[in-house]
Amino acid sequence: MQIDIIGRGNVGWHLLQAFAGKADVVSVDSKSLAELRLDADIYIISVSDNAIEEIARRLNELLDSSRFVAHTSGTMPLDALDSFFGRTGVFYPLQTFSKNVNLDYREIPIFIESHSPEDESLLSEVAGLISNKVIRMDSQRRKDLHIASVLSCNFVNHLWTLAERYLNEKEIDFSLLRPLIEETTRKLKRLSPYDGQTGPAVRHDNKTISSHLQQLSDYPEISGIYTMLTESIESLHPKK
Amino acid sequence: MQIDIIGRGNVGWHLLQAFAGKADVVSVDSKSLAELRLDADIYIISVSDNAIEEIARRLNELLDSSRFVAHTSGTMPLDALDSFFGRTGVFYPLQTFSKNVNLDYREIPIFIESHSPEDESLLSEVAGLISNKVIRMDSQRRKDLHIASVLSCNFVNHLWTLAERYLNEKEIDFSLLRPLIEETTRKLKRLSPYDGQTGPAVRHDNKTISSHLQQLSDYPEISGIYTMLTESIESLHPKK
Repeated sequence: MQIDIIGRGNVGWHLLQAFAGKADVVSVDSKSLAELRLDADIYIISVSDNAIEEIARRLNELLDSSRFVAHTSGTMPLDALDSFFGRTGVFYPLQTFSKNVNLDYREIPIFIESHSPEDESLLSEVAGLISNKVIRMDSQRRKDLHIASVLSCNFVNHLWTLAERYLNEKEIDFSLLRPLIEETTRKLKRLSPYDGQTGPAVRHDNKTISSHLQQLSDYPEISGIYTMLTESIESLHPKK
Repeated sequence: MQIDIIGRGNVGWHLLQAFAGKADVVSVDSKSLAELRLDADIYIISVSDNAIEEIARRLNELLDSSRFVAHTSGTMPLDALDSFFGRTGVFYPLQTFSKNVNLDYREIPIFIESHSPEDESLLSEVAGLISNKVIRMDSQRRKDLHIASVLSCNFVNHLWTLAERYLNEKEIDFSLLRPLIEETTRKLKRLSPYDGQTGPAVRHDNKTISSHLQQLSDYPEISGIYTMLTESIESLHPKK
């Protein structure tokens, strides 16, 4: 199987690692397209959503329009590529990818979509080379899943960033929070997040909340986020 | 060691489990105080911050004022108990506690504070019965740590709650996110959260962000949180 991966960001970097030894894979610089092969079985565009159409347009100038081209976006619809190629697909691996952080690719769900059963079967074969969890999903539902993943991963990680920076300024070691953070995740296996909610907001403990907001008076960004998420917790967990 | 734990919420419930077999421990209903012993070595008040002073006042009517009384709050200062008892302390276990979810207590950091070396040594002995990580910390820094733990645990868990409810409405299985959530946490061992940030906001991928906000137009609560956290990520990670 000849696979050309266009883009060398986090996702492109990991797809190259994942396919290495399992397919004839080439990494293509999205700026130059210099390494592009003209006869690959599938072209996987792995760039920022902002850039997908521009890359597809340039690929269209270089490749036969009968080539099979897919993108890796959670949010862009399948038809984003339809004006450039006759055979298009989506190949969306649901994971947080950072270069040089190893992953067990077999556990990563890959969501696929295409217009024809033949192309879907090819996508499924390609995804099956690296993952045990290949799932068909339409563009609308994939976007909903992507939104949920932004909440569950990107925003979560940013809260940790804010906590780390706050503690660094106070010269308190962020690693003191590690057992707490690990247990927060571990508990998800036992309880729904709704049932596992703890902290001042779910207790409607106004004394603690006011005291925290007072302590955060020099940190308007954190206190804005604190207020909004506290109100959201309180409204979802009414006082008993 | 005679330990009376006042309060049967999540923390009180877990302290009772933790001390069982390691001390002579009694759980006291904070409403009735019916089981209270008059001669315990330490009284640990484990109730909502709103209620600590009221409980201390009622204990003061029942106990000799020379008794040693501590609270488990991350945020209330040590001196919150000083008007009621001559010997006071703080015994703050940093963890997310849900009843019936087992924990390895030895890994939980316990932050202690008191006015005298003798009481501090008693607190340290009591904490050492259940944890390998007993740490002295003053009230101001403990409150900062508590704020960071609200960001890192309570708010994180709430984002998972919002994601789960959103996916449930769309009839998408929340468990599809589990590998992502686990990797988000696991990655913290390899990279600082700042360096591990991924997603549309850190890429300044406006196309994805607008598309998500449009999809969230019927979910004003989620879209408010989405906007605020996206702006916070963008401002902390300027476009390269």
